[in-house]
Amino acid sequence: MRLSIGGVMKNVSIIGSTGSIGQNTLSVINSLEDRFSVSALAAGRDLESLARQVVRFRPRLVSVAEESDAMELKKRLKDAGVGRMPDIAFGQEGLVAVACCDGVDVVVSATVGAVGFLPTFEALSLGRRVCLANKETLVMAGELMTRAAERSGAELLPVDSEHNALHQCLRGERISEVKRLVLTASGGPFRRTPLEDMRKVSIEAALAHPTWQMGAKITIDSATLMNKGLEVIEAHWLFGFSADEIDVIVHPQSIVHSMVEMVDGSVIAQLGVTDMRLMIQYALTYPERLPTELPALDLGKLAQLEFFEPDRERFPCLRLAYEAMREGGTMPAAMSAANEMAVAAFLDRKMGFMEIPEVISAVMEAHETGPVSSIEAVLEADRWARSQAESIIAQSTSAIALN
Amino acid sequence: MRLSIGGVMKNVSIIGSTGSIGQNTLSVINSLEDRFSVSALAAGRDLESLARQVVRFRPRLVSVAEESDAMELKKRLKDAGVGRMPDIAFGQEGLVAVACCDGVDVVVSATVGAVGFLPTFEALSLGRRVCLANKETLVMAGELMTRAAERSGAELLPVDSEHNALHQCLRGERISEVKRLVLTASGGPFRRTPLEDMRKVSIEAALAHPTWQMGAKITIDSATLMNKGLEVIEAHWLFGFSADEIDVIVHPQSIVHSMVEMVDGSVIAQLGVTDMRLMIQYALTYPERLPTELPALDLGKLAQLEFFEPDRERFPCLRLAYEAMREGGTMPAAMSAANEMAVAAFLDRKMGFMEIPEVISAVMEAHETGPVSSIEAVLEADRWARSQAESIIAQSTSAIALN
Repeated sequence: MRLSIGGVMKNVSIIGSTGSIGQNTLSVINSLEDRFSVSALAAGRDLESLARQVVRFRPRLVSVAEESDAMELKKRLKDAGVGRMPDIAFGQEGLVAVACCDGVDVVVSATVGAVGFLPTFEALSLGRRVCLANKETLVMAGELMTRAAERSGAELLPVDSEHNALHQCLRGERISEVKRLVLTASGGPFRRTPLEDMRKVSIEAALAHPTWQMGAKITIDSATLMNKGLEVIEAHWLFGFSADEIDVIVHPQSIVHSMVEMVDGSVIAQLGVTDMRLMIQYALTYPERLPTELPALDLGKLAQLEFFEPDRERFPCLRLAYEAMREGGTMPAAMSAANEMAVAAFLDRKMGFMEIPEVISAVMEAHETGPVSSIEAVLEADRWARSQAESIIAQSTSAIALN
Repeated sequence: MRLSIGGVMKNVSIIGSTGSIGQNTLSVINSLEDRFSVSALAAGRDLESLARQVVRFRPRLVSVAEESDAMELKKRLKDAGVGRMPDIAFGQEGLVAVACCDGVDVVVSATVGAVGFLPTFEALSLGRRVCLANKETLVMAGELMTRAAERSGAELLPVDSEHNALHQCLRGERISEVKRLVLTASGGPFRRTPLEDMRKVSIEAALAHPTWQMGAKITIDSATLMNKGLEVIEAHWLFGFSADEIDVIVHPQSIVHSMVEMVDGSVIAQLGVTDMRLMIQYALTYPERLPTELPALDLGKLAQLEFFEPDRERFPCLRLAYEAMREGGTMPAAMSAANEMAVAAFLDRKMGFMEIPEVISAVMEAHETGPVSSIEAVLEADRWARSQAESIIAQSTSAIALN
């Protein structure tokens, strides 16, 4: 443990360091290098970015997707003349090794999809603070995750702007005096697209998010509002509220990041610029707040904030998520897995935008919900839903080919 | 001390019970009668309302403006067949007696103007929770009031919607991590009135506040933005921030009641319906929040919140208040007294709307600022400013008569 001017130096692991959240996390750590150092990084296949990060932040351990990636990274690092070569791991084991790396205080869980599930669970079980950007983790196995955190005393700090905002709004409040949580949704690029035009939506249009710069999967999830559905389930596990106590409101400007309504009718809201570094820093430094160099929110120039009820007909994914949440057990895991497959198929131009909820709905209808009794039960539901989704997508694709 | 189902029964005194805040306070107490009982009420000349309140809430002590009012009230209460006649006091002594009434836990300071000054000071000195709606108190003698509260351990809970909102936003925050306070202003009825039309503004137009139902003096203060200026000074004393750390933003919908910007760029805001009962109840029950029967804020129906920079040219009162605050000492007391006189003269049709800041500015220029060393020093500055304002108004009136 090294002492810095500001206090104790914290060691950080990042699961998913070359993605959008990972890069922003390193940008925050770069500006707070007297408080945080990087112990371990896990990435997928973007070896060029990863090599640059290793040269700059000198982690002791690095993990990549496959063994061949590990060899390639080693070569790149040698070529770059890195002083001390880090240990290089790969695959699921590599991810877990990064989460469990010795001496780590904070694990930033920033991968997209089910791949972040195990390393997040292991980090929580070790009692480490987890800054969670991977929302599938709580959607799939919120029960197991929160139980692991309770047992070890680990803190679960949300990085997602909505949950981070809720965390801030709830700081001074008693949970028993909260009436409901209100998550804001930008409404995505198709907020005003007529229902009949939604089937013809292009990948490019779906990837053009109006307010946030994010990865492809989460951007599509924002366009279908599944992202908001996943967030409702995530909020349930993070803060302990039921489906009836969590609402969604469309707020196209994405300035109000979320709100909490208290029993007396007061509403506490968190507002900010749409820059993930704000939330990442909050999750890293909580309960402290530190100055940032980000431009301040200029409300006087902003002029106007709008709010609308979400259109549940044009965005069936939101309804599906509430249904899965109410059903509980393995249903949210199955829904999330089906969504991952459907989004991937849409991005591969295998099917249309409005077929995403159709695939998810078909998988949910076929799923026999079981209890979330173990990690294996969750992973089994995940595998089952993926294979189920795959065959539905294949049928739909061949049906299109026949037409 | 009586025990209620919800906990300890609290005894309340209200200074200014027949005004807008006083009536709303009694409405809140009416809905929470297992938690609050009324010990003492002070009013001015609205004996009809006061008599009704005495019959309903059975205080032990009542105070009115003058001895003749006391006689008249006694007669009315006899006629109404009130069981146990309360003690009836009058004048400044009566106000102080109500604030200091035995066994009182909470004093609601709800008069308008300097008249609330002494009773509020006495209540704070006795260590009682003061729910403060009288803003002149802190403007005139914030230093004395906060020192008295510190010495006795009294809690000062703001009822004004803006400060109440700030109090809520600051609940979970460290003061050292706050960057600035942002008070919202509705902008009053003349937000879009061209500068050249501001001189011809009628009393009726000035009294037509777009969002809040309030008394006459505070409604005119809202139209000149002096109300916001007084609130900036009040916020300074309540929360300990300097003039440079307190900003004003125009928000015509009055839904966001105020905001706090943190050092990391996050903004925490409080939103609510425009109903003072929400803030009064918060101040009475803090740190608890209790359910209310008020309609919830329906953001989905609200659709739109606007924010603008205030126009300091058309609203010179805001600038004058900042100047008085920076000058400190007895200057804010002199400014507030001059404002009271100017507003009264406007309401008496003795002068025009845009002469209000002119009178205040002239009084401020003539004032020789002294230290707020004692109550007497403040009251002397108040008296001096009133007489100074009176002669300026008389000159201006005779000038008009000569034209």
